[in-house]
Amino acid sequence: MGEGLKGFTKLTPIVEAWREFKSEIKLKSGVEEVPLFNALGRVLAEDIIAPIDLPPFNTSALDGYAVRAEETFNASRYNPALIDVKHVVKVSTGDALPNGYDAVVPLELTEAKEGFLEIYSSVPKWGNVNRKGFDVSKGSRILNKGRKLRPWDLALLTSLGFKYVKVFRVLRAIIYPIGSELRTPPFLPTERLRPESNSLAIKALLEFKGMKAKVGEILKDEVREISGKLVRASEEADIIITLGGTSIGGRDVTVRAVENVGEVIAHGIAMRPGKPTALAKIEGKPVICLSGYPVAAFIAFKTFVEPLVDYIMRSYPQLKVIYGKLSSRVPSEPGLVDFVRAKLRWKGDTYIIVPIRRSGSSLYSSLTRSEGTIVIPEGVEGLEENALAPFIFHEDPWYPYLGLT
Amino acid sequence: MGEGLKGFTKLTPIVEAWREFKSEIKLKSGVEEVPLFNALGRVLAEDIIAPIDLPPFNTSALDGYAVRAEETFNASRYNPALIDVKHVVKVSTGDALPNGYDAVVPLELTEAKEGFLEIYSSVPKWGNVNRKGFDVSKGSRILNKGRKLRPWDLALLTSLGFKYVKVFRVLRAIIYPIGSELRTPPFLPTERLRPESNSLAIKALLEFKGMKAKVGEILKDEVREISGKLVRASEEADIIITLGGTSIGGRDVTVRAVENVGEVIAHGIAMRPGKPTALAKIEGKPVICLSGYPVAAFIAFKTFVEPLVDYIMRSYPQLKVIYGKLSSRVPSEPGLVDFVRAKLRWKGDTYIIVPIRRSGSSLYSSLTRSEGTIVIPEGVEGLEENALAPFIFHEDPWYPYLGLT
Repeated sequence: MGEGLKGFTKLTPIVEAWREFKSEIKLKSGVEEVPLFNALGRVLAEDIIAPIDLPPFNTSALDGYAVRAEETFNASRYNPALIDVKHVVKVSTGDALPNGYDAVVPLELTEAKEGFLEIYSSVPKWGNVNRKGFDVSKGSRILNKGRKLRPWDLALLTSLGFKYVKVFRVLRAIIYPIGSELRTPPFLPTERLRPESNSLAIKALLEFKGMKAKVGEILKDEVREISGKLVRASEEADIIITLGGTSIGGRDVTVRAVENVGEVIAHGIAMRPGKPTALAKIEGKPVICLSGYPVAAFIAFKTFVEPLVDYIMRSYPQLKVIYGKLSSRVPSEPGLVDFVRAKLRWKGDTYIIVPIRRSGSSLYSSLTRSEGTIVIPEGVEGLEENALAPFIFHEDPWYPYLGLT
Repeated sequence: MGEGLKGFTKLTPIVEAWREFKSEIKLKSGVEEVPLFNALGRVLAEDIIAPIDLPPFNTSALDGYAVRAEETFNASRYNPALIDVKHVVKVSTGDALPNGYDAVVPLELTEAKEGFLEIYSSVPKWGNVNRKGFDVSKGSRILNKGRKLRPWDLALLTSLGFKYVKVFRVLRAIIYPIGSELRTPPFLPTERLRPESNSLAIKALLEFKGMKAKVGEILKDEVREISGKLVRASEEADIIITLGGTSIGGRDVTVRAVENVGEVIAHGIAMRPGKPTALAKIEGKPVICLSGYPVAAFIAFKTFVEPLVDYIMRSYPQLKVIYGKLSSRVPSEPGLVDFVRAKLRWKGDTYIIVPIRRSGSSLYSSLTRSEGTIVIPEGVEGLEENALAPFIFHEDPWYPYLGLT
């Protein structure tokens, strides 16, 4: 059963909607300085240039004796080199190489004998030495602006003597669940009322993206109330997300409420699920109206909110797409980008992609039972059994695959 | 320049070391109940059975009129069905279907006319209805013990009326950096002293794995001091990690210190980097002695600490391996599992794996410049240019690829 246009007279292609949306967003993230131990996952607001060499000196790569390489020339087990012990220096791994020395002989290839060191192997110049600047050379750029700081970035910066880094301010999002039928959990569903649950997931997804997310109160399906809240939200938050009321049915007032106080850039996107998504702005702040259906909300979040956050932070993630063989045919409606939930099975040397059969956009189980999504482009009418398909794990970004940059 | 045995007379294969280690660990994680809004990323300690159907009632999938399907039989634009408006019920998306009705006609396919509703299309029984239990049926198992709770798991549980879930207690790790040459940062390296930086990265990696991690004070290369600290650590922490002093040189006293108060299960592993890693136990608590070299510490962390945490928590991640073509030959030493840092480039329809040239285990830059690791099994002598190689992103687990379960 196709969803059809669902009342939309025109659907905007994803890429077009994104480009218009992006061009309307004026928001730039501020910059702040934070101590390294608090900088994990933050996005660099500056290129980092190495202030010193690393290692800062020539250092020994192992436990042994610092020597002059030429003195070990031709040494072997049968023809050891003999050096006065006063002319060698015992060093441990990581020790700075004393001045005037240019190689290290491993301890196990030496023996001290009556004032002399016997050396059983020749070493080349700089043999077993980690040379000054070998890891990082002073003045080189080691991390780029826009990088999301990872565990070893912090260790490297610490090794170089850094204490603080400049990072972009954390973006703040506010989420408004909308729907008179929603009640604050815990709540057991009745015929007319149900617990509001999607904001919990959207909040978690925003936090995964490094944002501070706050869930606002549940709003009733009343245009004026919603409009008022959104204006106030645009003053305190960087990004506003609404959940629910985005179709064009009688009770779907969210987009009308946004129109009253802002500008709707696109409503009705050529994607499935997620068709009723709207992209808008209020006072220059981005507003993303997500469906109240969990799957549609998730798919539109991955499609539009993730690139938005990265765009503002100037941080671009790596595409992680995995190709696998489809275990069964996947139908798709041409003219729409289709997102199909699936599981992945590893069969020794190849991945099998198993599409989730029941995949209505209202089904939580299609999200909790799947591990990722197959993306089927607009021009394609479906993928055959055994076809190679692109699979993206739910926790990885897929917007680079859609060409949204 | 091969590392050779580096003083180890025997190297234990990874799988063998892991199996022995695992069999010696008696640790089981306790269980606690937490509110759903605090449960993200926690590991379920129970199977979750749906206490109700979801949706709990038959609900309308769209805005329209609830009807009896048979009354729309053969209806079309030219031959509309006519039903008394008293016999239909207007419903919005998500509304419970009133008793006695079995289908919904979309609003746009109807028109109200003088007490009658004209219907321009037939609907099948249960057409446009999300049936009771369609998403989740009461009594079915929806989430398994050992599952790391994801955003939509929480939304689903909330929709089912849950308030709390039983999860495994968060494991506590303590990290001891060891080395008389180390100083607490911020500190600029001198010829003899350098800032201790690796614990910051290891702490972050442990936190990514859902643990609580604490960095202990820097310990000097003194057997008795280290032994004493480790015994106390085994009383307060679940997992103990040491950093540094694991080789068998003169100043490498960590493993000796562990031996004094516990049992060393393996020291010297057939892997590169990470050869000097030791696996041990003190009072039944797992102790993992990582190299002081950042790359070796990271590789051994991914190889042994990640499966350990998941084993204790009974949580098993999905393997995420990506195959790509090697941009250049990668040499490898047979008899060792080789871990080679690399970058990934997406070339339209295939991944190119670009190995990082300078990959000594002391190099921070080989970690910060790479995105993942190529794993080369023991029996393989190297991989040729253009060969298909398995690439795993640094943030994804690779131990399932090694067969450590």
